Amino acid sequence: MEEGFSFLSAGTVTSARGFMAGATCAGIKTKKGVLDLGILYSETPCVAAAMFTANRVKAAPVVLSQQRVQSGKAQAVVINSGCANACVGEAGLDDASEMAKLTAQKLGLAEERVLVASTGVIGRRLPMELVRAGIGEINLAPDGGSALMRAIMTTDTVPKEAAVRATVAGGEFIVGGIVKGAGMIHPDLATFLCFLATDAAVEPDFLKSSLREAVDNSFNMVSVDGDTSTNDMVLLMANGLSGGEPIFSESAAAGVFQEALSQLCIQLAKCVAADGEGASRLIEVRVNGAASVVDARLAARTIASSPLVKTAVHGGDPNWGRVLAALGRSGAVIVESKIDLDIGGVGLVRSGVPTSFNRAEVSQLLRVSPVIVKLELNLGAASATAWGCDLSPEYVTINSHYTT
Amino acid sequence: MEEGFSFLSAGTVTSARGFMAGATCAGIKTKKGVLDLGILYSETPCVAAAMFTANRVKAAPVVLSQQRVQSGKAQAVVINSGCANACVGEAGLDDASEMAKLTAQKLGLAEERVLVASTGVIGRRLPMELVRAGIGEINLAPDGGSALMRAIMTTDTVPKEAAVRATVAGGEFIVGGIVKGAGMIHPDLATFLCFLATDAAVEPDFLKSSLREAVDNSFNMVSVDGDTSTNDMVLLMANGLSGGEPIFSESAAAGVFQEALSQLCIQLAKCVAADGEGASRLIEVRVNGAASVVDARLAARTIASSPLVKTAVHGGDPNWGRVLAALGRSGAVIVESKIDLDIGGVGLVRSGVPTSFNRAEVSQLLRVSPVIVKLELNLGAASATAWGCDLSPEYVTINSHYTT
Repeated sequence: MEEGFSFLSAGTVTSARGFMAGATCAGIKTKKGVLDLGILYSETPCVAAAMFTANRVKAAPVVLSQQRVQSGKAQAVVINSGCANACVGEAGLDDASEMAKLTAQKLGLAEERVLVASTGVIGRRLPMELVRAGIGEINLAPDGGSALMRAIMTTDTVPKEAAVRATVAGGEFIVGGIVKGAGMIHPDLATFLCFLATDAAVEPDFLKSSLREAVDNSFNMVSVDGDTSTNDMVLLMANGLSGGEPIFSESAAAGVFQEALSQLCIQLAKCVAADGEGASRLIEVRVNGAASVVDARLAARTIASSPLVKTAVHGGDPNWGRVLAALGRSGAVIVESKIDLDIGGVGLVRSGVPTSFNRAEVSQLLRVSPVIVKLELNLGAASATAWGCDLSPEYVTINSHYTT
Repeated sequence: MEEGFSFLSAGTVTSARGFMAGATCAGIKTKKGVLDLGILYSETPCVAAAMFTANRVKAAPVVLSQQRVQSGKAQAVVINSGCANACVGEAGLDDASEMAKLTAQKLGLAEERVLVASTGVIGRRLPMELVRAGIGEINLAPDGGSALMRAIMTTDTVPKEAAVRATVAGGEFIVGGIVKGAGMIHPDLATFLCFLATDAAVEPDFLKSSLREAVDNSFNMVSVDGDTSTNDMVLLMANGLSGGEPIFSESAAAGVFQEALSQLCIQLAKCVAADGEGASRLIEVRVNGAASVVDARLAARTIASSPLVKTAVHGGDPNWGRVLAALGRSGAVIVESKIDLDIGGVGLVRSGVPTSFNRAEVSQLLRVSPVIVKLELNLGAASATAWGCDLSPEYVTINSHYTT
C-alpha cells in the first residue's frame, strides 16, 4: 500500500469515522426556512486544537472556546449564523455558555467539552428562545456535514467542504472540513470559520503545530494576518477512530498527516478566495526566488490582496505595473532589474522591463479562472503562494446593505 | 498685528511671492486638448525639502529628484501626467534627466536645481518628442498655479489647491499648494503628488522637519504609511521673498509656520480623501483618549481605510460593529468595555455596548458629508484624526479600465 492521500468525492466534515452533524432552521436569520444553527459531534472524545482571531474585540463564543480548548480536548461544537454574539457586554458570555450547556445536555457531555462559534451581525443579543428550541430540534447524522455547512453560511454563495483520505504504513485515515467565509477586497472582517475533523489518532502538541502550519500556508495566504474579524475560529478535532498509535512529530506518518491536512486547507482556502463577494475569478499568485520565506509570503499576499490588481483582473486589463507596484510596497526585498512576471504563462516583464506581449491575448487570459500570476524575483530559493479574487462592483453593493 | 493665519480665497501654489507656473497640452495623454505638462518656478533660488514614496519600485523622476533635493536647494520642478516613467529600465532616467535639462535651459538654471515628477501609466517610455516640444510651449505666469494643478490630474475629479497667509511678529508670509491624488479603497497606488511653495525664509533643517510633521498629520492620515505608489512625492520650496530672517526651530515664528503648513496640508489631504474615486462623502475619524499617539493614529487610519466601514457609510448603514472590529484589528491598545462611539454627534456605543439609538436618524447622518466618526477610548490623553471616503460601486468601475 503506497503512502499518500487523495481527495474524496463529496467529502465533508463528517467524512471521517465517528463524526456526526446536523442543523436546523432556528429562525436566528430573519429569512424563513434557512438553516442557521448546527452541531458537529464526535462519538468519542477528541484531541482538539484551535486558532482564533487576533482581533482585540473578541466575540463571546471566541472567548469561551479559546478558554476551553486549552485543555486540548473537545467532543462537540455548536455553531450559529445570523448573530455574531459580539459587542453585547457580559450577557454575551452567558448566552454562549448556555448554548454550550444545552448542547452538552442534549449529547450527554460535560459542558467543558463543548465549544461554541457564531457568525453574523455584531452588537445584537442572541435570540436565546430560538436557540434553545433550535438545539432541541437538531438531528445528528453521519452524513450531516453538508447541512452544517449550509447552516454556517452568511454571504457565502457556495458551500465549501472537502475531505482527503490518507494512506500510511499503519493503515488509513480521513480528514474532512467545512469553511465559511468569502474573500474580501482587502480581508477585513467577514467572519472566517473552519471546522476540521479527522479519525486519525494525533498527539495533542503535534495536532496544534500541524494545524498552525496548515493554516499558515492556506487560510493565512488568503487573508492577511491580523486582519481578522471578531469571530474567526479554526477548529481541528481528532477522535482516533481509525485506530493506530497517535501520530506525533517524529512519527513515520507525520509527514503524510501534515501534507493531507495542509492540502485540505489549501483546497478550502481556494474556495474562500474564489467565493469573494461579487467575484468571478480566482487569482493565484506564486512568488519564487525570494530571499526569504517571509519575503515570499509578504509579496504574494500583498499582490493577491491589492484592490488595484483585483480590479485590473476584473476588467481584463493586463496592468502589470500594478503588480510591480504592489510588490514594491509589500516590504519584500527586491531588485527591480531582476524581476520576471508571467500571467497565465505569458511573459509580461523580464528583468524589470515589459516585454512586447500581446495585450489582447493576456486580456483574454485574465478572464479565465484561475488567473495565475507568477513572479520570479531571482534573489534566492524561497517561494510562497497566495490566493485572491477579482474585485467587481457587486462587492460594494453587497457590503453597503448588510445589516439593513 | 496678531499672530496667526487664515486661508486665502482662490489660493494656489503660486499665491506666494515670486512663484510662477504654467502648463501645456503636450499630447502625452491620449485625450486631445488636455493639460498634461507643467512647470513650477521660483524667480529666486529656494531652500527645498521633499518626501518620496517608500515603494521599493521607484519611478525614474523619483530617483532623480530624491538625489538632487539632498542639496536642500531647488528652483523649479517640471511635471507631467499621462505617463509615470516607471519600470522602463535605464532609459527612464535618461528621459527624466532630459526633461530637467530642457527645463533648466528654458529657465536659465543649473540642471541640478530642477526636479522632475511624473504620474500616469507605468511601464511606458515618455514620448520625448512631445515632452521636448511641450516644454518649449509652456508660458509661466504668477497666476499659473491653477493651470499646473489641472496638468497633474489623472483620476482626480476636482482640482485641489489652497493657500494660507500667516502673520508673525516680523511680517507676513504665504504658503500655497496643489495636490493630485484620489482617496482609494485602501490606499494602494494612485500616485500622490503635492507641491508646496512659500515666500517665507526658512532654514533648511527646519523646513525638512516641519514638512515631515505636516505630512504625518495630513497626507499620512489619508493614506497608510508604506502603501505608496512608484511615483509619490511631496515638495516644499521656500524662496524667502517675504523678507525677514530665516525661520528655524527655535524662532518665534516657528510655531505659526508649522501650524500654517500643517493646516494647509490637512486642507489638501481632506480634498484628496473627499475625491475618492467614485466617492460621495468625506469621512473624518477622530480617536481620543488613546494610550499613545501611535495607538491613536493606528486606530484612526485603520477605521478610515476599512472597506467595510466605507461601504457601510455609502449605504447609510449604521453598522457600528464594523467600526469596532476595525478598531480591534488596528493594533491599538483598547479595553472593549471602555469604548464610546459617536457618529454625527449621536452616541451609538457606550462602554462597549450599543445604545438604543435611532437607526433612521443615524442612517440620515451617514448620508451627509462630512461623516464624523468619534471614538473615545478612555485610556489616556492621545488623539489623532484620519480621513477617508465612502466606497461606491463606481470605484471598481473606474479601476477596472484604467489603462485600456
